[in-house]
Amino acid sequence: MAHQKLVGNMLIAQSGGPTVVINQSLVGAVLEAKKQIQIKKIYGACHGIQGILDEEFIDLSKESNRSLETVAMTPSSALGSVRKKPTSDDCKAIFAKLQKYNIRYFFYIGGNDSAETTYIINEQAQHQKYDFRCFHICKTIDNDLRENDHTSGFGSGAKFVASAFMGDNLDNRALPGVKINVVMGRHAGFLTAASALARVYPDDGPHLIYLPERPFSIPTFIKDVKRVYALYGRCVIAVSEGISDARGIPVASKFTKEKDSHGNVQLSGTGALGDLLANCVKTRTKISRVRADTLGYLQRSFPGVISEADAKEAREVGQQAVRFTVSTFKNGSVAIRRSAGPKYKISYKRVLLKSVAKETQHMPNRFINRAGNDVTLAFLNYVRPIVGPLPKIGRLSAPKVKKIRG
Amino acid sequence: MAHQKLVGNMLIAQSGGPTVVINQSLVGAVLEAKKQIQIKKIYGACHGIQGILDEEFIDLSKESNRSLETVAMTPSSALGSVRKKPTSDDCKAIFAKLQKYNIRYFFYIGGNDSAETTYIINEQAQHQKYDFRCFHICKTIDNDLRENDHTSGFGSGAKFVASAFMGDNLDNRALPGVKINVVMGRHAGFLTAASALARVYPDDGPHLIYLPERPFSIPTFIKDVKRVYALYGRCVIAVSEGISDARGIPVASKFTKEKDSHGNVQLSGTGALGDLLANCVKTRTKISRVRADTLGYLQRSFPGVISEADAKEAREVGQQAVRFTVSTFKNGSVAIRRSAGPKYKISYKRVLLKSVAKETQHMPNRFINRAGNDVTLAFLNYVRPIVGPLPKIGRLSAPKVKKIRG
Repeated sequence: MAHQKLVGNMLIAQSGGPTVVINQSLVGAVLEAKKQIQIKKIYGACHGIQGILDEEFIDLSKESNRSLETVAMTPSSALGSVRKKPTSDDCKAIFAKLQKYNIRYFFYIGGNDSAETTYIINEQAQHQKYDFRCFHICKTIDNDLRENDHTSGFGSGAKFVASAFMGDNLDNRALPGVKINVVMGRHAGFLTAASALARVYPDDGPHLIYLPERPFSIPTFIKDVKRVYALYGRCVIAVSEGISDARGIPVASKFTKEKDSHGNVQLSGTGALGDLLANCVKTRTKISRVRADTLGYLQRSFPGVISEADAKEAREVGQQAVRFTVSTFKNGSVAIRRSAGPKYKISYKRVLLKSVAKETQHMPNRFINRAGNDVTLAFLNYVRPIVGPLPKIGRLSAPKVKKIRG
Repeated sequence: MAHQKLVGNMLIAQSGGPTVVINQSLVGAVLEAKKQIQIKKIYGACHGIQGILDEEFIDLSKESNRSLETVAMTPSSALGSVRKKPTSDDCKAIFAKLQKYNIRYFFYIGGNDSAETTYIINEQAQHQKYDFRCFHICKTIDNDLRENDHTSGFGSGAKFVASAFMGDNLDNRALPGVKINVVMGRHAGFLTAASALARVYPDDGPHLIYLPERPFSIPTFIKDVKRVYALYGRCVIAVSEGISDARGIPVASKFTKEKDSHGNVQLSGTGALGDLLANCVKTRTKISRVRADTLGYLQRSFPGVISEADAKEAREVGQQAVRFTVSTFKNGSVAIRRSAGPKYKISYKRVLLKSVAKETQHMPNRFINRAGNDVTLAFLNYVRPIVGPLPKIGRLSAPKVKKIRG
């Protein structure tokens, strides 16, 4: 399958929401490219395809390995990112720029939209018979790319979420009440589900987990909360920002609409869902201490909370993209695959660009409990090695003192 | 000054908002007490003074040192906490319980309210001529206790906040816009101010810092944001949850009141301030990408992000409270003092309970810049050793590629 050596320059760019390990992929690809004699200049485009359109390139061939290694440890797209879905005209313009700089190797680090962009640019090249290699390098904390067992960035995001719930569960244990935490993931519940890793002792939270894959009903939610509260005197809840009702309407947007129809200020959103669910609990139960937090951007950018497996795999998908493209495949995406069996073993497979583009994947049924308010053991077994060790949590186990009468 | 040996049991309890190192103080006191022959049983009260009123005690003499060491590393009050200001009758009842269990040594880990409670209980004992020793052990992420250079719990909270801003600044650099983060601290701005430690490069955020110690004005805020945005094309903002207008009315409550008068649902609060400031920026400027997060409870409970100095000092204030009380002082609070000079050197001083009770302290003027929208170098020098090393951040420094004409 080895193809002829194509000599030319390389361009790499980053796109979409950052992750804490996205620069591992960048550095993995750049260091691997430096070894390949057919790759001449290694350019980085600033802010994804916007940087290509504006010809805003930096010469990564001149970046020292030492600096690259520091950047690899640094969260968030070092080249800058962009949220731009290119039009058909944009794609033509992008392709013209690639030709102009004799770019023969193109790598785009991103999610399903970036795979789609890479696919369209590649179509353009084929159409024009321009000899060209391109690879999509997967990343997304949402873990929703098809063909992948999991995506790079997810493990570290999940570690942050699990750690946050560990601490928050202890906070709630010290000062009991109901605590709602809103977690990222508009359509896929993986990140919210990872909160379950926070449980160490049988009564540890999160006690309830609501995912976008199951319809959310306020009456059922209130019933769940009352039941848990009666059992433990407290309740910690993980809610995906994307929870929707039976008709598929996001709960957050429903509240916002309700407000609009009354002519009120529309909230920008992130804090609103948690506050409004908290309000529901306050008004529909007798529980007085109810709090809500939205974990926010920290989930994708907090430095220092990194899954070792995730960092390693993010580096390797970058390396693999370059290896695949100089040795065997003209284009594609690097998918992370896991071997069957109890041991965590990863391999990298080239998949078609089309097969990861556009559509995303969701939590499979076997990862969600029947009641739709928790995860299963299958999910925990799936996610634990991706996240790796969590902080050690201890409890006092000293015996109760017998009360003195009178 | 050495006083006569008083033989009896000891009781220790935790109160108020947790910190990630509050159990270091508990374990420091318990391990030190185990060495003292005049201290017999070591009881822990569950959920602060509520546990004393209910006689909910555990026998910490029977907790293994190994278990204690794991608990010391675990965030949030292991004994449980409480937010309860005792009435005069409560104090009498508490004192009666202490007598009943022959408690001669009482330690209360908490903030200014807990110091006040300890003071009142001690008054009660003196009034009744009950031979009694008691110490308050300082903790609060707000860093607002008088007599202290800083309080235990603050360093780790500040490390979390600084780390959060480091990551969020990188996120904002990758996807530029305005980002507002709301930080804990209703009356004292220390924690919000600590966000300034996130700056590594000259253009790093937070670019604006608003503290409760200075009046907040929306027009000035908008002017500041416009100026920074014109300069960097982006703006990261740290806002204390307690920012108030010139009349001292909290900005958050003003917005909420406005809503109430229109008969709308009252928001529980935490997400509201950030969202509403973001809305201000959106409607009063031409900047389209504006986001807000509220850092929330993670600031006081996130496991694993711990300042080493903070953990060490939290352990030592616990130890010192026991040492002071068996050797020299009948009662008091352990204050953290810092030696003058560039080297970070800490000592522990016994101060009067009254001198840390009730009233709190705020950011001194020399820590806040003239414009009231940033901190000074004096603050950075003050806070840096309390927080210790932060994650290493790298940037690409590769040269720009010269654009090809045409």
